[in-house]
Amino acid sequence: MAIVLGPNRYGKAETRLVRVHRDGETHALVDLNVSVALSGDLTGTHLTGDNSGVLPTDTMKNTVYAFAKEHGVGEPESFALLLGRHFVNTQPQVHTAKVSIESYAWDRLGPHSFQRRGDHTRTTVVTVTGDAAQVVSGVTGLVLLNSTASEFHGFVRDRFTTLPEATDRILATAVDAHWRHLADAADWGASFEGALDALKTAFVETYSYSLQQTLYAMGRRLLEQRPEVAEVRLALPNKHHYLVDLSPFGLDNPNEVFIAGDRPYGLIEGTVTRDDVPPALTEWWL
Amino acid sequence: MAIVLGPNRYGKAETRLVRVHRDGETHALVDLNVSVALSGDLTGTHLTGDNSGVLPTDTMKNTVYAFAKEHGVGEPESFALLLGRHFVNTQPQVHTAKVSIESYAWDRLGPHSFQRRGDHTRTTVVTVTGDAAQVVSGVTGLVLLNSTASEFHGFVRDRFTTLPEATDRILATAVDAHWRHLADAADWGASFEGALDALKTAFVETYSYSLQQTLYAMGRRLLEQRPEVAEVRLALPNKHHYLVDLSPFGLDNPNEVFIAGDRPYGLIEGTVTRDDVPPALTEWWL
Amino acid sequence: MAIVLGPNRYGKAETRLVRVHRDGETHALVDLNVSVALSGDLTGTHLTGDNSGVLPTDTMKNTVYAFAKEHGVGEPESFALLLGRHFVNTQPQVHTAKVSIESYAWDRLGPHSFQRRGDHTRTTVVTVTGDAAQVVSGVTGLVLLNSTASEFHGFVRDRFTTLPEATDRILATAVDAHWRHLADAADWGASFEGALDALKTAFVETYSYSLQQTLYAMGRRLLEQRPEVAEVRLALPNKHHYLVDLSPFGLDNPNEVFIAGDRPYGLIEGTVTRDDVPPALTEWWL
Amino acid sequence: MAIVLGPNRYGKAETRLVRVHRDGETHALVDLNVSVALSGDLTGTHLTGDNSGVLPTDTMKNTVYAFAKEHGVGEPESFALLLGRHFVNTQPQVHTAKVSIESYAWDRLGPHSFQRRGDHTRTTVVTVTGDAAQVVSGVTGLVLLNSTASEFHGFVRDRFTTLPEATDRILATAVDAHWRHLADAADWGASFEGALDALKTAFVETYSYSLQQTLYAMGRRLLEQRPEVAEVRLALPNKHHYLVDLSPFGLDNPNEVFIAGDRPYGLIEGTVTRDDVPPALTEWWL
Repeated sequence: MAIVLGPNRYGKAETRLVRVHRDGETHALVDLNVSVALSGDLTGTHLTGDNSGVLPTDTMKNTVYAFAKEHGVGEPESFALLLGRHFVNTQPQVHTAKVSIESYAWDRLGPHSFQRRGDHTRTTVVTVTGDAAQVVSGVTGLVLLNSTASEFHGFVRDRFTTLPEATDRILATAVDAHWRHLADAADWGASFEGALDALKTAFVETYSYSLQQTLYAMGRRLLEQRPEVAEVRLALPNKHHYLVDLSPFGLDNPNEVFIAGDRPYGLIEGTVTRDDVPPALTEWWL
Repeated sequence: MAIVLGPNRYGKAETRLVRVHRDGETHALVDLNVSVALSGDLTGTHLTGDNSGVLPTDTMKNTVYAFAKEHGVGEPESFALLLGRHFVNTQPQVHTAKVSIESYAWDRLGPHSFQRRGDHTRTTVVTVTGDAAQVVSGVTGLVLLNSTASEFHGFVRDRFTTLPEATDRILATAVDAHWRHLADAADWGASFEGALDALKTAFVETYSYSLQQTLYAMGRRLLEQRPEVAEVRLALPNKHHYLVDLSPFGLDNPNEVFIAGDRPYGLIEGTVTRDDVPPALTEWWL
Repeated sequence: MAIVLGPNRYGKAETRLVRVHRDGETHALVDLNVSVALSGDLTGTHLTGDNSGVLPTDTMKNTVYAFAKEHGVGEPESFALLLGRHFVNTQPQVHTAKVSIESYAWDRLGPHSFQRRGDHTRTTVVTVTGDAAQVVSGVTGLVLLNSTASEFHGFVRDRFTTLPEATDRILATAVDAHWRHLADAADWGASFEGALDALKTAFVETYSYSLQQTLYAMGRRLLEQRPEVAEVRLALPNKHHYLVDLSPFGLDNPNEVFIAGDRPYGLIEGTVTRDDVPPALTEWWL
Repeated sequence: MAIVLGPNRYGKAETRLVRVHRDGETHALVDLNVSVALSGDLTGTHLTGDNSGVLPTDTMKNTVYAFAKEHGVGEPESFALLLGRHFVNTQPQVHTAKVSIESYAWDRLGPHSFQRRGDHTRTTVVTVTGDAAQVVSGVTGLVLLNSTASEFHGFVRDRFTTLPEATDRILATAVDAHWRHLADAADWGASFEGALDALKTAFVETYSYSLQQTLYAMGRRLLEQRPEVAEVRLALPNKHHYLVDLSPFGLDNPNEVFIAGDRPYGLIEGTVTRDDVPPALTEWWL
């Protein structure tokens, strides 16, 4: 019953890069948080501290900054692919590179002036193994709310169930969604904007009997509208809004005054997929 | 040398209120975080645990929710004044009420559908003492960046100074600004939007030799454009963006590739005021 | 190419439970954060909003509180198993229950007085599927530092490598470790304390040539000392401490003055396992 | 009605310093977060961007690191005084220096091995003006809980009061306390430990009828035991623990099962002082 090294990887996390592209008087801004993780033949450093196969994480950071100058930074998916392929192609002991990028959007206020948006974060996770690559795009921190058109009833009741049935409630969530591409998109930016629009539109248009139903509708809509996407995975916290009992004060409360709760919260997680897509290059759920 | 009770106050902090106003099919959403602090004759509870003058903080929370129904919630300044006056007028032992509100903006996606904005938080701090009231409005979390038109040189050099002079740098900050009103505004919402616009415009238009200069320009612009405001106080973190030295890689870096730093950061704080305004009802700086 | 529902689950996250056990004058305190996720036959609610198979997440919360009274709360692993088995055994449509618990430790100050410790969080993730159960214990937020006995050199150098070789550096990390049990422990508390001690002792006693080497030593030590554990997975951020260049001020700096960096940070992740253990009931890495 | 510059200051915030003191094989660790703010004659930089009176905030950071080497770092109060006096004495245009330090404690695991404690943060705020100095010491993040010996009743009831009277409840808080010294302490470390012990002991020993009563007892105890302290200011959130109603499940709940709430929370703030102390050098409340 020997003790052995199992799966492992290492890298540099959260390299914060701001890239200014100057086109005369008018500047463009790219604001990224880049994390790199490499795996391959790393037994030596684990077992004996032999670092002859270890590219320093400091070098990964330098590579991010140098590539931002040499190649510019366009869509985060492209930049992640460029980085991932570089590490796999130049380091023989590295078999797989995972490059994760968070992108922060800024609104333009002037030729060289910007205001950070803050309404969502665009994400990319690219995995490169040998000649193959897998691109997952996504969004986090997108907070949506319907103030009606949401019901919840007909559920299981057991000894511990006290929840009343609801025929009109607030439905709110902070969308965390990630979708795997079938192949490189012609235009990653347009693909992302289209996917984001599909998620938002489905949330708005779905008359909901459960957050699960809304989740499925959001994933389905995204797949319907984006043929370049293989599957989508969503984690939707149910951000509960509790109706306040105002009867002690002689007031009714016809779905007007709510407590916005912090914890606990529901958490609904699910995948919507196509029945004929090739399997993922690497497991990427959670 | 007796030990005695000094200044004190108590209240309920961070009551989270979502108020839906229903106008037929079309809903409007108000999303607030309300904190109340009362002071007055509270010696008994401190010295002996005699609570006969203590209105429970739970009651303050209930009052927030009940008032949201009874009176609706319009501009946060008005709602804070309503609450503050209620506590001072109905509790004789309470001499001063401070009501602080954070307001979170949502963009409309449909008649009853909304997306949280996240680009700034609107704040209000109202102090009511007897018949007098002081209203401070403000903004936090407004992140602005100029990618050029910022220099910093001509500063003091001592033994510990290594900073090179800069003739072109990124200037970025997260605006935290609060302004005291001379009197009740005719339209608190228009006043806030005008103040926000003044701050942003001055940041964009000021060719800056120091963040202090930009701070003063922002405060001055706000006072010029909003006659209803007595003074403005700003705390501006200097969110440093460090130019990356790419010369080891044979690359130049003409203000294109930056590290977005976390800590340490500069912190510039200042007041811009009118030379003839009445003093504040209560000290409100910090 | 039909669109179909893939893997999914739902539950209540972050139910905050404080349980006081009163033994006469002397009280004991258990402080937990409990999350439940159920999966099984949930197609109806996703596709049509038919909730006839949905036990409300509100009921899960109620069950946590009711069980805390009915059964008391001992070791978190036992409490998680109790909850997980309850959901699988009483809800035929539920095939798998995952119960995750964070435990916060308090030091005793008196018979009924406590101070929160804050030096680490104990974690448990229990998965129950049919008659089988898998128990993973762990720790997060355990911050360790060696101020010497750490080197890093002999690594790969490429075009982007500028890192100097180090023969004396600070090694610091925030331990995030999770270990899968082979079977129910006789004493979960003793098992956890023993595992924690193994991790800390290995960190202290390992003269380190890389954080990977320290990671492997920590995992190996845990397995050597805890025969009830099948494998351990560690995620160790390399919390960089940068030596300050004081030469501009005419000062040397023989490893005495450091900048504690925030971002970026290294991230070293790895598994240490036994070569003959049965496979995990469900994938649990990440 | 001219627009003019009002009070202002600037500095470097959150310089993270780790100082290793090496005494042969045995190392000692000091882990600080240092913020500096200077005020004085800074009109030029605000009005015209003339920086001839501005010591860069980058220099303040350098000074922190250089002083850590030149002078070592003992008690944070001493280090803050050293820094504050340096800026006021060497920069004629600087009239006041405020140096704020957070100190993070580590437990020893070996001659050069440490574990971060995390149970509280020690704070220091030193203000130097000309030849005068004011030292404020403090603590934040100290979480205390009594599981009984706390009541709350006899309070005011108005139309919005629904809170039942409590004769046995949990009392919990996260202590934020700051105390002003009459003069330099002979031993800042012993003074801090004594003050911390006084706060904790008073919390434990006070049978409480309100958190205000406990606050006053904590402040009074500190002043009784530390004659070097002029006054103490406390901000105590009332971390509510709500008794769960288990009656729907046929269970009673004699103060055993609680929900640990996040928001809203009570917030009790107060000062305990001596009736004959000299006034503060600068206002320091909040």
